[in-house]
Amino acid sequence: MDEFMQAAIDEARLGRSQGGIPIGSVLVRNGKIVAKGHNKRVQELNPILHGEMDCLNNAGRQAEGYRNTIIYSTLMPCFMCAGTIVQFKIPKVIVGESRTFDGAREFMESHGVEVVDLDLPECVQMMEEFIAAEPALWNEDIMEE
Amino acid sequence: MDEFMQAAIDEARLGRSQGGIPIGSVLVRNGKIVAKGHNKRVQELNPILHGEMDCLNNAGRQAEGYRNTIIYSTLMPCFMCAGTIVQFKIPKVIVGESRTFDGAREFMESHGVEVVDLDLPECVQMMEEFIAAEPALWNEDIMEE
Repeated sequence: MDEFMQAAIDEARLGRSQGGIPIGSVLVRNGKIVAKGHNKRVQELNPILHGEMDCLNNAGRQAEGYRNTIIYSTLMPCFMCAGTIVQFKIPKVIVGESRTFDGAREFMESHGVEVVDLDLPECVQMMEEFIAAEPALWNEDIMEE
Repeated sequence: MDEFMQAAIDEARLGRSQGGIPIGSVLVRNGKIVAKGHNKRVQELNPILHGEMDCLNNAGRQAEGYRNTIIYSTLMPCFMCAGTIVQFKIPKVIVGESRTFDGAREFMESHGVEVVDLDLPECVQMMEEFIAAEPALWNEDIMEE
């Protein structure tokens, strides 16, 4: 397992252990982790803190920008997170899976973002177990009614 | 002046008085303000708290979703905020202006969001004065280098 994806999975599992939604993310520059994060809708009653957003929140202001960064996420980014990746000019996204949620891959690619989907069974299983256990919470997070 | 746009402008001016970036936002449902917010990059060293994001953050979890809401912003939303509006299924955006920043109008419209640009001289002037005073801060906020 890629060490950065493993760190994102660890964040996702940490979030789930807190009663939250198991999606984690890490921001990497020059082979080092800049920041980590996980979805905090439940923990902080906060709808904008998806895993990727929490990670970028934790990274704080980046004086040099994001052009030499890679963002990892255990799940394909939604339009909020994808729009953020495009706006922040993060050039590459590596995701754990997109089987349980399509996300906004085409939108990111249309703006020149490289998207790599590792399609990891571990990530699929984590989301499938969560969605089966808490379908209403998952639908709230992706704004499905 | 529309009372909700006035509230968004008041938020923007509050942010500027704190040394921050003068962009404000309010979320409205059934003719009432649900939440207000303003850009907090400077105040909280936080790159994801654009005005619209801070407003949605302050609104917290919305059990009934956002389909019957309107979001106001003093400036045309960037891709982060536009992606959030699309993901949250907010059907209508009313903005103060888009002369100082193009934003992501076409992206929102392509996803069925109604975008109304009031093109208010007051909003244009507020941003022009800010950009002239703090060009580096503005470029950081929109990730221009």
